[in-house]
Amino acid sequence: MPLQPVLINGAWRASDAVGEFEAVNPSTKTPLPDTYPVSSAAEVEEALHAGYEAAVTLRTMSPEAIARFLEAYAAAIEARADALVELAYAETALPKSPRLRDVELPRTTDQLRQAAAAARERSWCLATIDTKRNIRSMYGPLGGPVVVFGPNNFPFAFGSASGGDFAAAIAAGNPVIAKANTGHPGTTKLFAAAAFEALQATGMPPALVQLLYRVKPDVGYRLVSHPLVGATGFTGSRSAGLRLKEAADKAGKPIYLEMSSINPIFVLPGALEERLEAVAGELFASCSLGVGQFCTKPGFVVVLHNEKSEAFFAKVAELFQSPPGVLLGEGGVHTIADAVQKLQAAGAQLVVGGYEVEGPGYRYANTLLRISGDDFLKRPHDLQIEAFGVVSLVVFAKDIAQMQAIAAALEGNLTGCLYSHTGGDDDALYEQVAPLLRTKVGRLLNDKMPTGVAVSPAMNHGGPYPATGHPGFTAVGIPAAMLRFGALHCYDNVRQHRLPPELQDKNPTGTMWRLIDGVWTQKDVA
Amino acid sequence: MPLQPVLINGAWRASDAVGEFEAVNPSTKTPLPDTYPVSSAAEVEEALHAGYEAAVTLRTMSPEAIARFLEAYAAAIEARADALVELAYAETALPKSPRLRDVELPRTTDQLRQAAAAARERSWCLATIDTKRNIRSMYGPLGGPVVVFGPNNFPFAFGSASGGDFAAAIAAGNPVIAKANTGHPGTTKLFAAAAFEALQATGMPPALVQLLYRVKPDVGYRLVSHPLVGATGFTGSRSAGLRLKEAADKAGKPIYLEMSSINPIFVLPGALEERLEAVAGELFASCSLGVGQFCTKPGFVVVLHNEKSEAFFAKVAELFQSPPGVLLGEGGVHTIADAVQKLQAAGAQLVVGGYEVEGPGYRYANTLLRISGDDFLKRPHDLQIEAFGVVSLVVFAKDIAQMQAIAAALEGNLTGCLYSHTGGDDDALYEQVAPLLRTKVGRLLNDKMPTGVAVSPAMNHGGPYPATGHPGFTAVGIPAAMLRFGALHCYDNVRQHRLPPELQDKNPTGTMWRLIDGVWTQKDVA
Repeated sequence: MPLQPVLINGAWRASDAVGEFEAVNPSTKTPLPDTYPVSSAAEVEEALHAGYEAAVTLRTMSPEAIARFLEAYAAAIEARADALVELAYAETALPKSPRLRDVELPRTTDQLRQAAAAARERSWCLATIDTKRNIRSMYGPLGGPVVVFGPNNFPFAFGSASGGDFAAAIAAGNPVIAKANTGHPGTTKLFAAAAFEALQATGMPPALVQLLYRVKPDVGYRLVSHPLVGATGFTGSRSAGLRLKEAADKAGKPIYLEMSSINPIFVLPGALEERLEAVAGELFASCSLGVGQFCTKPGFVVVLHNEKSEAFFAKVAELFQSPPGVLLGEGGVHTIADAVQKLQAAGAQLVVGGYEVEGPGYRYANTLLRISGDDFLKRPHDLQIEAFGVVSLVVFAKDIAQMQAIAAALEGNLTGCLYSHTGGDDDALYEQVAPLLRTKVGRLLNDKMPTGVAVSPAMNHGGPYPATGHPGFTAVGIPAAMLRFGALHCYDNVRQHRLPPELQDKNPTGTMWRLIDGVWTQKDVA
Repeated sequence: MPLQPVLINGAWRASDAVGEFEAVNPSTKTPLPDTYPVSSAAEVEEALHAGYEAAVTLRTMSPEAIARFLEAYAAAIEARADALVELAYAETALPKSPRLRDVELPRTTDQLRQAAAAARERSWCLATIDTKRNIRSMYGPLGGPVVVFGPNNFPFAFGSASGGDFAAAIAAGNPVIAKANTGHPGTTKLFAAAAFEALQATGMPPALVQLLYRVKPDVGYRLVSHPLVGATGFTGSRSAGLRLKEAADKAGKPIYLEMSSINPIFVLPGALEERLEAVAGELFASCSLGVGQFCTKPGFVVVLHNEKSEAFFAKVAELFQSPPGVLLGEGGVHTIADAVQKLQAAGAQLVVGGYEVEGPGYRYANTLLRISGDDFLKRPHDLQIEAFGVVSLVVFAKDIAQMQAIAAALEGNLTGCLYSHTGGDDDALYEQVAPLLRTKVGRLLNDKMPTGVAVSPAMNHGGPYPATGHPGFTAVGIPAAMLRFGALHCYDNVRQHRLPPELQDKNPTGTMWRLIDGVWTQKDVA
């Protein structure tokens, strides 16, 4: 069986391979038929040079052209929906329906269309004009391609050739070099083929989208730190992310990482008085969504220790008894087992699950652990390990002060949530805990589980380290996510006809929002 | 002579010193009378804890309180103007008038007042509201103190306890730990005293502003990477900046660096045909401003080789014959000499200067070098060394293609400039060079030298690495500079009365700009 081709500089071609790999069907534990190449350093170098040239060309094209490409691509995805769903199911075991076909695929095409609309509308670039001094600035493209490393758990919506980072990078005017997740290389190839079809149909630079499946670690470090690269978007494990971050940081290249998060849920006593069963149900539903393989899965729950919270825990434990789904791969079983073992070693008590489930498909039993606040505070770092599956640790605080101490001991997370009495019985306690939680998380929720990350302009799918590498950026939400892939471009005394259209006196669309002399307006410069 | 006290946790007190140092008067080469401590690791730890507590308190206070503090501080500076000017002159040899008293001091108080106005006005936080989904986000404080390392060349306007980073960090709601530049510790202490007086008068947390003078390298790395620190702002040398960056990056702590820049000037042929003498004069004036010790000093000039550009060079060389001013310190003489030697070793030909000037005050002769485009392109990296003084290298390109190659070989810079014929004779050439320069610089200028960084909302005093550590942020310009010291805070389904005022339905000021459902408005949520 020949190796699958890579997409480099506008051509599908045989890879200059230094190795090969196959994807495995997680439901059957058997390898899938296709074999994929591990790209050489020379091949990566070529992709970077082609991506750089595409970046130069792209700067001469209008946002309208970018928008048309993104829309054509969304349509091309829809035209291949059956094939994408079938192959993604084979590679990931994620349910075809509703998950892949009815949720993730529409989310993916919606993101691409939102990105198209944002590119066309142009307000994303925060054009700022000081008419008195004739200084004007906006976010513009980075000058080199953006490398996207997609995660294993969302083959469509976070895919390296189809997901949020891809859409944001292109909409901000940058070419993309997609590095497929090795769990679903075939799905990524299908996306890249659809993108390539769309870019040809819309007359875009041939290297606007390129595809590699895998590189050796040293080549990956070179990729993210290369002088020609614009930036990198990475979603994946903390260990891989930190190694790439170190390489990119050393070279001064922006890298946006979404790494790991335990997504603490503080269930205040009034909420349990009021709706114990409902909260337990919401918690389990959120924990088990996608077999717990969501970056916003609530893996850490804090309650005040009393009879109600014991009853809550018993209810949650009952729900956790249900049979587990199929994980994304064999690696998932090992990393969950490792995390559960580490949590136990740090003092957590295993109450439900804690073992691999034999039989067809990679499975690990739903796992619930508990620990006292006293014991948590003895080893807070070791007890904040993300277990990427249906695993949650419940911490029983002995009093409000200890609940505050637990909040203060948290590392950076994507999300943090407080459940409280709807009538206000918990309001005083809320005020004692929420401010501590606020600076530890990107998104603070009330009475709502964190899974389900709306593609909203107000979303923050980000947070302080180690959830991500920088607390000021979101990976989800158009147009905010585009700012990651923009450089601040200032024009000082530049002649009118030489300015980008976004900064000329005349509003280029008539509707674009610009900050002119401190006033947000859609008007022309007077 | 006892050591000068540090300001920690609301008290001026004896330092837990592990060393001491004196400042030197650059005009006389003699030590100044006061002696300053090198702070211990324990002292730094204490400042961080106090700064963290101040951050917690500050979150409970209104932007109005922060604005009042900044305004009171600006007034306190004005009340001490004489003392500040005298001491800064003694420590830096910068002219008292107009430089210190009439330019830098008003710029400093203006920045503080602009920051106060931005804090009060609140639009800086980019409040974004999705009413349909009830998701709301804004930039909020980081949750820990901001450490500011100020440079030697602007003791007021970039000072660690008075300058742009200080103003931006405080206005964004973060306490500051100021690390004085060791060239002007006394001036920094005067500022910290004025700030402390103002914070007491306005009822702010005592550790809102703290002051250290110097730390050993390992303690500095700990400071910027500490779990309690919010972020760091650094302006200074590339070598010191990169070491701090490495430490902060490894800990996932934001660090904003302004390091080095040669600020390329492309003088197109039509500009020389039209106004050779004027351009030469502007170049020398910009080069020699502040004795060349400006981060935006034009240290690199590119011309097409022809008779006119030789005449231009001759004119510039004539201007460079003037006597040099006093540098900020002895270190400056050495670093300039070292840079000039490295440029020569890389092939540049020394035409004017190239030696230390003996006599009172630290001086180095104005220095002009030249090189052919061919020779530059052989060693482009070695020929982009910043020489922090009145030093410039002129590169003679043999043709337009070579001028483009030179632009493409540039590293990241704060600024880049094109001088061109006012009647449009250079327009075709401009289009060939400007796009290449655009992605290499933060601020692109036309027909204007880069020194003089206006405090404008549209300014970008930033640029790609190695000019800074990230191409998306500016260190000058209110309110944009404040975004460096903000974390993106999202609120999902949070009850109305628990939201920060900036995100509640009612516009908290009636004038704040918010992005509500895609529309920038000053209105309440309907």
